[in-house]
Amino acid sequence: MAPKNALYPGSFDPVTSGHINIIERGAQLFDEVVVAVAVNSAKKPLFTIEERVDLLKASLTHLTNVKVVSFDGLLVDYLKNNDLHFVIRGLRAISDFEYEFQIAHLNKRLDKEMDTVFMMTSEEYFYVSSSIVRELASFGGDIHGLVPRPVEEALIKKFKKIG
Amino acid sequence: MAPKNALYPGSFDPVTSGHINIIERGAQLFDEVVVAVAVNSAKKPLFTIEERVDLLKASLTHLTNVKVVSFDGLLVDYLKNNDLHFVIRGLRAISDFEYEFQIAHLNKRLDKEMDTVFMMTSEEYFYVSSSIVRELASFGGDIHGLVPRPVEEALIKKFKKIG
Amino acid sequence: MAPKNALYPGSFDPVTSGHINIIERGAQLFDEVVVAVAVNSAKKPLFTIEERVDLLKASLTHLTNVKVVSFDGLLVDYLKNNDLHFVIRGLRAISDFEYEFQIAHLNKRLDKEMDTVFMMTSEEYFYVSSSIVRELASFGGDIHGLVPRPVEEALIKKFKKIG
Amino acid sequence: MAPKNALYPGSFDPVTSGHINIIERGAQLFDEVVVAVAVNSAKKPLFTIEERVDLLKASLTHLTNVKVVSFDGLLVDYLKNNDLHFVIRGLRAISDFEYEFQIAHLNKRLDKEMDTVFMMTSEEYFYVSSSIVRELASFGGDIHGLVPRPVEEALIKKFKKIG
Amino acid sequence: MAPKNALYPGSFDPVTSGHINIIERGAQLFDEVVVAVAVNSAKKPLFTIEERVDLLKASLTHLTNVKVVSFDGLLVDYLKNNDLHFVIRGLRAISDFEYEFQIAHLNKRLDKEMDTVFMMTSEEYFYVSSSIVRELASFGGDIHGLVPRPVEEALIKKFKKIG
Amino acid sequence: MAPKNALYPGSFDPVTSGHINIIERGAQLFDEVVVAVAVNSAKKPLFTIEERVDLLKASLTHLTNVKVVSFDGLLVDYLKNNDLHFVIRGLRAISDFEYEFQIAHLNKRLDKEMDTVFMMTSEEYFYVSSSIVRELASFGGDIHGLVPRPVEEALIKKFKKIG
Repeated sequence: MAPKNALYPGSFDPVTSGHINIIERGAQLFDEVVVAVAVNSAKKPLFTIEERVDLLKASLTHLTNVKVVSFDGLLVDYLKNNDLHFVIRGLRAISDFEYEFQIAHLNKRLDKEMDTVFMMTSEEYFYVSSSIVRELASFGGDIHGLVPRPVEEALIKKFKKIG
Repeated sequence: MAPKNALYPGSFDPVTSGHINIIERGAQLFDEVVVAVAVNSAKKPLFTIEERVDLLKASLTHLTNVKVVSFDGLLVDYLKNNDLHFVIRGLRAISDFEYEFQIAHLNKRLDKEMDTVFMMTSEEYFYVSSSIVRELASFGGDIHGLVPRPVEEALIKKFKKIG
Repeated sequence: MAPKNALYPGSFDPVTSGHINIIERGAQLFDEVVVAVAVNSAKKPLFTIEERVDLLKASLTHLTNVKVVSFDGLLVDYLKNNDLHFVIRGLRAISDFEYEFQIAHLNKRLDKEMDTVFMMTSEEYFYVSSSIVRELASFGGDIHGLVPRPVEEALIKKFKKIG
Repeated sequence: MAPKNALYPGSFDPVTSGHINIIERGAQLFDEVVVAVAVNSAKKPLFTIEERVDLLKASLTHLTNVKVVSFDGLLVDYLKNNDLHFVIRGLRAISDFEYEFQIAHLNKRLDKEMDTVFMMTSEEYFYVSSSIVRELASFGGDIHGLVPRPVEEALIKKFKKIG
Repeated sequence: MAPKNALYPGSFDPVTSGHINIIERGAQLFDEVVVAVAVNSAKKPLFTIEERVDLLKASLTHLTNVKVVSFDGLLVDYLKNNDLHFVIRGLRAISDFEYEFQIAHLNKRLDKEMDTVFMMTSEEYFYVSSSIVRELASFGGDIHGLVPRPVEEALIKKFKKIG
Repeated sequence: MAPKNALYPGSFDPVTSGHINIIERGAQLFDEVVVAVAVNSAKKPLFTIEERVDLLKASLTHLTNVKVVSFDGLLVDYLKNNDLHFVIRGLRAISDFEYEFQIAHLNKRLDKEMDTVFMMTSEEYFYVSSSIVRELASFGGDIHGLVPRPVEEALIKKFKKIG
C-alpha cells in the first residue's frame, strides 16, 4: 500500500496545545503529517513565519512522522505539487464548522483528488485559540498548559520586549 | 506499517447515496472500511438487519477494501474486540455536528485508544437522509439518484407490498 | 402579468398567532395564498383535519386573498396539480433553518419549477409553536394572544372535555 | 435583604454529574436552590418520580442549602405558589440554547416577575445527558464518573433486573 | 393588482454566480427586482461602485425585469423614497441567518410597511462568496463558474495589473 | 449571608436598551452589580471611556444597587482584586453563545472561584447591538427606544459634529 500522507495547514501564531493534540492524533491516522504554516501577508502576525516554524518544530520533537513547512499561495496548488491528497482540520465550534464546510467544498471543487478529514478538538482545549492565547499573554495572564513549553517561553519573552 | 482500518457505523435503513459517497471516500483514506449496521431494538425499522446488510453489500460491489457487518451492543466494545481504532462519521448539518461531537467525546472517554474521523457529506447529498428517502418512497416520490440502484428497487417493491 | 400564488403548508395543530402573522404578510406578497393542512397519518393530532381547516378559516376571515385546503401525499405533487410555483415557510430558529433548508432543496430537486420563499417569524411570536400551545393549554395555562380567538376557545373546550 | 431562592427543574431520569455540577454552582449563587423533578406523564421514565427524588437527595447530602421536590403542572404556577422568582437552567449545546431561549421567553410572558438564569455546563460533562447515561448503562457500559455514586449503583441494579 | 417590486441590496464586490442565482429566482417571484449596490465608505473595495454596477448590468442582460442601481445611506430610506416594500436576501449558512434575522427585524421596526423575503442559496453555490472569489483570484486560482463571465474577465484583468 | 455581587463587563460604546434590560434584571438577582467598561486600546471607539462611564451613570440613576467603573487588563485579575465571584453576560444569539462559552470556560480555568451567569436578552432588544446603533445613528436613522435617552442625545450631538 502507498503511504498516506496529510497536510495540516494553519497560521499557528502561535501553535497551541489544541493544535498539538490534533497533530498527535493525525500522526496516528496518517503515515506522515506535514504541518504547513500559511504565509498570510494580510494580517500582522505576532511571530514571523520562521519563528512559527521553529516553535512548531521545538514542540513536535516527540513525533517522528511529522514535518513542518511553510507555504504561500493556494492550498490546492501546494497539495498537487507535493502529491498530497488529504487535509486535516480541527473542529472546535459551530462557526468553525460552517467556514470549514465551505472551504472543504471549495477545495474539492478545485481539485477532485483531494479530501478533507476533520477531527474534533479535545474538550480540554476547545476554548483555546491562538488569538485568545496572544491576548492572555499580552496582559501577563497565566498561559501554562494552553501552549507547548517552547511557546510559553517565547510568549513571555515577546511580551517582556513589547511591554 | 500496520494497516489502518476504520468502522463506519449506522442504521442504514436504507443506505443512501450520501452514505455511499462517505464510504467511497473513507475507502481512499483507510486500508479497510468496516460498514457496521447497528442492531437497534428500539426503533421499528423499514428493512430488517439482514436486508440492510444485503442492500449495502449489493451497493458496494465496486469497492474491494470494504466489508459489511452488523453489530449489537456498545460501539466501543465492538472496536476493542475487533482491534479497530478509528470510526468514520459523515457530517451534514449543525445538529449532526453537536450530537456527533458528544458521542465522539463520550467514546474517547470510554476508550482512549479510539478516535473519530469526520468527513463532510458532498453538497449534492446534504439534503438526503434515510428518513427523508423512506417518506418520499412511501408517497411514490422519485428517489432515483438519492439511493443506490439496489435500494431504489427494494424501496419500490417494499411500498408496493405495503400500499 | 400572470397572478402569483403560493402554498403555505403545515400541520396547524392548531394554528398559532405566529402562523397568522406569516399568512398576513404572505398575503401582501402574493396574489393568493393557499394555506394547506397536511394530512399526516403518523402523528396523533389534537384536532382533526376538519377541525384544523375550520379553525384556520375562522381565524382568517379578515383576509380576502387566502383560502384553506387540506392535502395528502407529496407537497410537490400538490403544487404541480394546482399549478402553484411558490411555497411560503416561516423561519423561527436555527433548527427550523436546517430542516427547512434540506426540504427546500429536496423539493427543488423533485420539481425545478418550484421555489421556496422564507419569512422570519415576528419576534413577538418566535417562542410560540403549536406543541408549546398544546402543552400550555393542557395544564390550563394562559394562551391568550398566542393563538387566534377561535383557537383559544376551541382549546379551552377541548381540554375541558379531556380533563 | 430578602433571601434569593431559585428553582432548578428537570426530569432527572436519572440525575447526572453534569446536573450535580450545576446544582453545586447554583448553591453558591443563591441562598437556596429547590431542585424540582417534573412529573411528565407522556414519557416512559426509567426511574419513578419517588426514585428520582430519592437519588437526588442521596447525591446532594454535601449541600445544606438545597432541597428536592417534585412538581406537576406548569412551572410558572409552581413558582408563583412558592414565591420563587428565579429559575436555573444549564446550557450544554446550541440546540439546548434555542429551546431554552423559547421556554425562558414564554415563561417571562406568563409571569413578568420571574427570570431565568443560565449556567454553562462544565466542559468535562458537556457530553453527558440522562438519555446517554441510560443507553450506556443498558448495554453494561462504564458509567463511573458520569453519574453520582448512588445513581451508578441504582442503574447497575436496575439493568440487572431488566436484563 | 399593483405590481410587486423588490430590492436586492448588497456589496457585490464582485457579484458571484450565487447572487445571479438569487436574482434570477427573485425575478420569477417579483414583477421587478432592483439590484442595489450599497456605497459603503468604510471598507476598501476591490471594484469601484461604478465597476460593480457595470459588472452586474453585463451579467444580467438575460433578465428583462431587473434593474441595477447604487445607493447610499439607510436601506429603509431608499425603500420609502422609491415606494418599495420588499427586500430579497439570500441565505447561505447559520451565521448569515442570525445576522439577517437581526437586520430584518430592525428594518421592520424602522418601517412597518416593509418586509424581507429570504431565498436559500442553491447548493452548488453555497460555498461561494465575494471574499472567497477575491482571495482565489488574487492567487490565480480557477474561478470559472463561481462568477458570471464578465466578472471572471474583470478579475483576471484586475489581478494582472496588481500582480 | 455575605452579599452577592457581580460584575457586568463590556465595551458599552454606547450602552443600549438591551444592556440596560440585563442590568435591571441583574440588579434583581444580585445584591450589587458593578458595570465595568473595558479599556480596549485596539479598537477605535466612538465614545471615550469617560463618556461611556458617564452615559452609563446617567442611564442607571433609577437603580440604587448598581455602580459603574472602568477597568484595564484581565477580567479575572479585576475580579480577584475586588473580591467579586460572579460575572453577568447577556446572550442574544448563537454566535454570542459560542464565544461566551469559550470565554466563560477560560475564565473558570484562570480562577476556579469565579462563575459566569447568563441572562437571555429580552426579545424586544435581541436585534439591538452597539455597532448597529452606531451605524444607524451615523446615517441619521431613528434610534429612539434602542438606547436610553441620554445616549440618544449624545449620539445625535456626536454625529452632528462629525457630519
